[in-house]
Amino acid sequence: MKRKNTIIFENRPEIISFASVAGKKESEGPLGKFFDITSDDDTFGGKCWEEAESRMQMAAFNKALEKAKLKKEDVDYIVAGDLLGQLMASSFGMADMNVPFLGVYGACSTIGEALILGSFLVDGGYADRVMALTSSHFATAEKEFRFPLAYGNQRPLSATTTVTGSGAVLLGACNTEAADKRRLYVEGVTVGRITDFGINDANNMGAAMAPAAFRTIKENFEDCYSGIEDFDCIITGDLGNIGSEILYDMFINEDIDIDGKHIDCGREIYDIKRQDAHSGGSGCGCAASTLCGYIFKQMLCGQWSRILFVPTGALMSTVSLHEGNTIPAIAHAVIISVE
Amino acid sequence: MKRKNTIIFENRPEIISFASVAGKKESEGPLGKFFDITSDDDTFGGKCWEEAESRMQMAAFNKALEKAKLKKEDVDYIVAGDLLGQLMASSFGMADMNVPFLGVYGACSTIGEALILGSFLVDGGYADRVMALTSSHFATAEKEFRFPLAYGNQRPLSATTTVTGSGAVLLGACNTEAADKRRLYVEGVTVGRITDFGINDANNMGAAMAPAAFRTIKENFEDCYSGIEDFDCIITGDLGNIGSEILYDMFINEDIDIDGKHIDCGREIYDIKRQDAHSGGSGCGCAASTLCGYIFKQMLCGQWSRILFVPTGALMSTVSLHEGNTIPAIAHAVIISVE
Repeated sequence: MKRKNTIIFENRPEIISFASVAGKKESEGPLGKFFDITSDDDTFGGKCWEEAESRMQMAAFNKALEKAKLKKEDVDYIVAGDLLGQLMASSFGMADMNVPFLGVYGACSTIGEALILGSFLVDGGYADRVMALTSSHFATAEKEFRFPLAYGNQRPLSATTTVTGSGAVLLGACNTEAADKRRLYVEGVTVGRITDFGINDANNMGAAMAPAAFRTIKENFEDCYSGIEDFDCIITGDLGNIGSEILYDMFINEDIDIDGKHIDCGREIYDIKRQDAHSGGSGCGCAASTLCGYIFKQMLCGQWSRILFVPTGALMSTVSLHEGNTIPAIAHAVIISVE
Repeated sequence: MKRKNTIIFENRPEIISFASVAGKKESEGPLGKFFDITSDDDTFGGKCWEEAESRMQMAAFNKALEKAKLKKEDVDYIVAGDLLGQLMASSFGMADMNVPFLGVYGACSTIGEALILGSFLVDGGYADRVMALTSSHFATAEKEFRFPLAYGNQRPLSATTTVTGSGAVLLGACNTEAADKRRLYVEGVTVGRITDFGINDANNMGAAMAPAAFRTIKENFEDCYSGIEDFDCIITGDLGNIGSEILYDMFINEDIDIDGKHIDCGREIYDIKRQDAHSGGSGCGCAASTLCGYIFKQMLCGQWSRILFVPTGALMSTVSLHEGNTIPAIAHAVIISVE
């Protein structure tokens, strides 16, 4: 059912399986124990950082299948993306899977876009199973957007720390037979619009993305005639400390206090002060690994029964920044429930 | 209806409108008279090449709407992409449209992925109208993948020439009331798989992409129990001279002669020898502008009634090439009919 920018799914695509992979710093953070696969070696056995990121995607993909006792032949489509130019982590990571592939990009919101498109494919009857996955890696992102690590680049405290991690979600047709266990499903989605508030500081992506998150959450509420009271938690992707504060202020202007009902993956994944994570975590892998490591598990153990997952993305490249452009942002919303 | 990797649409999404934009060199080529908008100034009034590319996308979007007598508020989703790192041409080009946005990347095959996802959204009843569009620009692509134009970089004859152009396709629910005019529609799609034959020469993308095109076309035939005889033309994206010859050879090995029934957008868009286009045209804008400029018009005037449109993409970045990696490729197929 379509309500303005929001779709409520009739067939409620089920989250059949999920898996998370995280790097060393992430494994030492507050969510460390929740990740399926972690490594003390951020190369993950690869010969360069880019190969490491592809290997994380492969590991997340394979782990999600293993948990569901399925093979790669059982997956109809992969919807995947990453932060690298021309989606190279996904292109190499998913090349051997031999599964029809749809590459997507929404910066750090990419896991939201992948979940949305995967849900459309399953709900519409075009696929039995779709793997939605994304990744990011601190070292590949620093090289892509800033400088290679060896340059020892200094970042201001408003900057976020790109998460080394990957998350894979296997979506499938709702299995009503397995009534004996709790099931996670995608109830609906709100596709975001590009939102540009004129921020042009790449070291303050939270400020660029907060207005996009605000707009998408507000549209989701309006489209569904619902509000903060209808969710157990609103979970943004990677606004970090600064972006989260801006989001609170924007809702306060609407007489809505989201503070007690909001968490941000970028603030959860690190012990920000102890781990020197500056404004928090970011990257396609931040929201994805937190969703597949922490959030789904909290929902299955009864902590939350209905959440609004809102990954946010800062749409920028080094070329756009060097040309003095602003940072347009986007946020997608996914209503996830457990029953 | 799903047949392995191919979906045949029950509701047959209609191509309500389409528009093409092309640069100076393209306007001087064999298809010059077919493009809706051309410019002698490849900046399109922008202050840098990247802005020019965004302006081409805006122009294609607006022209497609104008031809359909619709406003941007009438579009439910934009599915768009380009070749630049982090899809910046689309992010800036579509920022002002205020329409829910899904960014996609499949290198030069991106218009195929956008048409596929747009068709899913319309056929599934999730949208009344979806704009699928892509662009490329010779100067932005040279900067992104090779060197800025001012360096005077020399390219070998196996290299293709990135097309300065954009194509926009407005997909919508099939309008059976307007029976008095010929209507174009998407009959079905085959989503491609990443195919890596080990080519690592970025100046020979045709060779990297031909195996992907072969595989997708063959799978489409097998999935639909059909063959070359069921199409008036097989139209690949930008294999150019070398890639097209390889495609012929691969089909000859299967005892199928596609020569008389195949054209390639990269070979059609330039008078290759006269215009010094090396192996032909390439880029997201090559297949998109040829589809929206030439192919749809030929179908509407009765030249072809059923085609297989197979845009092809070489999945590479400067980082992946500098690291000595191969070039994985992908090709998607879209069955387009007129009645």
